[in-house]
Amino acid sequence: MLFKVEMTVNIPKDLPVAEADAIKLKEKNYSQELQKAGIWVHLWRIVGQYSNVSIFDVKDNAHLHEVLTGLPLYPFMTMEVTALCQHPSSIK
Amino acid sequence: MLFKVEMTVNIPKDLPVAEADAIKLKEKNYSQELQKAGIWVHLWRIVGQYSNVSIFDVKDNAHLHEVLTGLPLYPFMTMEVTALCQHPSSIK
Amino acid sequence: MLFKVEMTVNIPKDLPVAEADAIKLKEKNYSQELQKAGIWVHLWRIVGQYSNVSIFDVKDNAHLHEVLTGLPLYPFMTMEVTALCQHPSSIK
Amino acid sequence: MLFKVEMTVNIPKDLPVAEADAIKLKEKNYSQELQKAGIWVHLWRIVGQYSNVSIFDVKDNAHLHEVLTGLPLYPFMTMEVTALCQHPSSIK
Amino acid sequence: MLFKVEMTVNIPKDLPVAEADAIKLKEKNYSQELQKAGIWVHLWRIVGQYSNVSIFDVKDNAHLHEVLTGLPLYPFMTMEVTALCQHPSSIK
Amino acid sequence: MLFKVEMTVNIPKDLPVAEADAIKLKEKNYSQELQKAGIWVHLWRIVGQYSNVSIFDVKDNAHLHEVLTGLPLYPFMTMEVTALCQHPSSIK
Amino acid sequence: MLFKVEMTVNIPKDLPVAEADAIKLKEKNYSQELQKAGIWVHLWRIVGQYSNVSIFDVKDNAHLHEVLTGLPLYPFMTMEVTALCQHPSSIK
Amino acid sequence: MLFKVEMTVNIPKDLPVAEADAIKLKEKNYSQELQKAGIWVHLWRIVGQYSNVSIFDVKDNAHLHEVLTGLPLYPFMTMEVTALCQHPSSIK
Amino acid sequence: MLFKVEMTVNIPKDLPVAEADAIKLKEKNYSQELQKAGIWVHLWRIVGQYSNVSIFDVKDNAHLHEVLTGLPLYPFMTMEVTALCQHPSSIK
Amino acid sequence: MLFKVEMTVNIPKDLPVAEADAIKLKEKNYSQELQKAGIWVHLWRIVGQYSNVSIFDVKDNAHLHEVLTGLPLYPFMTMEVTALCQHPSSIK
Repeated sequence: MLFKVEMTVNIPKDLPVAEADAIKLKEKNYSQELQKAGIWVHLWRIVGQYSNVSIFDVKDNAHLHEVLTGLPLYPFMTMEVTALCQHPSSIK
Repeated sequence: MLFKVEMTVNIPKDLPVAEADAIKLKEKNYSQELQKAGIWVHLWRIVGQYSNVSIFDVKDNAHLHEVLTGLPLYPFMTMEVTALCQHPSSIK
Repeated sequence: MLFKVEMTVNIPKDLPVAEADAIKLKEKNYSQELQKAGIWVHLWRIVGQYSNVSIFDVKDNAHLHEVLTGLPLYPFMTMEVTALCQHPSSIK
Repeated sequence: MLFKVEMTVNIPKDLPVAEADAIKLKEKNYSQELQKAGIWVHLWRIVGQYSNVSIFDVKDNAHLHEVLTGLPLYPFMTMEVTALCQHPSSIK
Repeated sequence: MLFKVEMTVNIPKDLPVAEADAIKLKEKNYSQELQKAGIWVHLWRIVGQYSNVSIFDVKDNAHLHEVLTGLPLYPFMTMEVTALCQHPSSIK
Repeated sequence: MLFKVEMTVNIPKDLPVAEADAIKLKEKNYSQELQKAGIWVHLWRIVGQYSNVSIFDVKDNAHLHEVLTGLPLYPFMTMEVTALCQHPSSIK
Repeated sequence: MLFKVEMTVNIPKDLPVAEADAIKLKEKNYSQELQKAGIWVHLWRIVGQYSNVSIFDVKDNAHLHEVLTGLPLYPFMTMEVTALCQHPSSIK
Repeated sequence: MLFKVEMTVNIPKDLPVAEADAIKLKEKNYSQELQKAGIWVHLWRIVGQYSNVSIFDVKDNAHLHEVLTGLPLYPFMTMEVTALCQHPSSIK
Repeated sequence: MLFKVEMTVNIPKDLPVAEADAIKLKEKNYSQELQKAGIWVHLWRIVGQYSNVSIFDVKDNAHLHEVLTGLPLYPFMTMEVTALCQHPSSIK
Repeated sequence: MLFKVEMTVNIPKDLPVAEADAIKLKEKNYSQELQKAGIWVHLWRIVGQYSNVSIFDVKDNAHLHEVLTGLPLYPFMTMEVTALCQHPSSIK
């Protein structure tokens, strides 16, 4: 079951750089594990923004909530969640 | 080069059904040719809306404009275009 | 799997009253069948508006899309869809 | 008398964790007492957000105000209140 | 129980003047009966707009919905409803 | 001459409680004097918000500005001012 | 007593040109009489828009409402009204 | 050449009062010199706001930018700039 | 003196095609004359939209208003006008 | 391939002046190198704002992202990116 999620990151300017870097590293690992597991199926950067467009393939709404709130950067993110389904013209 | 495009369709209520159906059929064919050509790489329906989320892989901005304005439903659509690029955490 | 859907109805002023009444009757029947089936689990009127707040319990996103686009008043509605899940403080 | 209330929580990042945890525990207890009393009749989490959708059944507007401003997390919340009533198609 | 309601009127330009005048007259009578009954407790015009600010004193949400949807101009109005209660500094 | 004013209070979280309480007490006294003088003619709390809906009866625009900027909580408020006049259907 | 009013004109495309021209001529005369009377004290065109920025000097709110709703183009206008007063740094 | 500029002032609460007062005094002097020079031709306070509506008569865009960014309060202001011209109904 | 103007075209669906084509041809000629005269210095299409981004070099505000309202498509356009000036980092 | 980018700068008030000045100097150099290289083809100041309107000519989306995120002031900027292409009426 697919969802589009658009995330924007706002790391506070007073967060120590070392701490921020540690969180970003965790974020990268967390993200790549979910990608390898086929849950985070697409991940694109929006040009000029500290934002991404993502497609998630999850079991249900609760699964998506667990995945999103588990993001190491979650406390510094705003999110917009959109439920998707098969388009009648799609050939996939 | 990737772009996210979100399209919303508003077919006027006074357009004859036969005419609307003919345009929708052309739209489907046009869309599927672009999908087969690897230009319209993803196409999802937004749940509850006459809208879609699409990912296009085009040569340049002019190519995207040509593809979008060639849509048979283009006169009845509003569009939002977002330039995308590689995300540093993406494994693809 | 739960979703909140807020629907607003805008019946065009030039739709003949008999036609509008026929659609509204179909809408009522459709809605009540879905309520009896445990799919449309809550349905409230927003005070002063031709709008409702609804809670749907569906199998997946595709199921919700099918239910919503099947509404007889769908061509005259705008919709806002929000994915819900269990709240940690809920006693249900 | 029913109201939909949508609450979003913004705990300031400089609030000590122990203090935040103590407030959240009070919030949970407060919420569950109101649920058991039949006043806070529904409570759902919005997927991906630190927000909820709630339905309250109160005696009157003053009662709702007392309940909402009594929330331990109230100073860190924004709220949107919508008055509801019986929908003519509802079977309840 | 008090509510603030802000109403804006948009009478379609193709409604015959005689019909519009008949509806406005009904509206005036309906409004004045509710004012005399102590239900529509305040009614002010917003300067420069075909809009009003109103205060209603009703038994409950359902009562307010019945009163508002009974307005002869209701099909041509947009409404914004806000629940009010006693202010701690009010001397009334 | 009547104006509707909607005020929202945002007391900074780092303002010492004693200082905030002193300002709120001054605000209450200031407000009640204006109510007794027939200038602040209505004052309602918006349910669930630290906001009010107020009606002022002032000599002119300058008088209203003087009254509003004299509020002890003024530095912590946002305001929305709307000029009102007699409604043709009002019986007052 | 001064007010800033911003007006935007939207003449429907199906209004006969002769009728529109007659209304515009009345509007011009009406406007110039109010300017000569010292009521419509400033009138500027916004570049690129069928809109104006105006300053009115009126006796009270009711006077402003009477002046604005008397505009021949009033049925085709949207308006934004802002109450003004003496600025402490103004030398006038 | 005329421009309408609407300015809103937000002095940070942690700016020492003496410093703020010194800036405001400079602002007043700066403003009055421009008024005397016929450049800042109108200056009104918006009722209930720490905002003004101003009309500037400048040589060109660069001149306006120089005047606005020279304001002692400029770092604490947000601005909205609108180009104006002669209105065909104006008698001036 | 430079201005950025963003124009969006909305040709009504009931305008006869021949009439629309005649207006578009006039628009093209009008636009190219202004480009050759060095007044319309840049003209770009926004990808996926019936909109453009334009830079005008005009004598003053009145000149810009004359140029814009003279556009054959002006009755079918919405416009956003922004005054520009020299950027201190520009090398031109 | 052309893009319009609108950038707004918000330097935090607690950034030491010397540090801010050093970043601004780097920004100027960075900007001028890109201008000389024909990548940052236009750069205008928006009157009254700490904002600019820029036109970039880049190889592709990734190139634009690299250029924008390399800006020394990037952490203090918000950006709006719009893809452009040839306008059919442009004579260039």
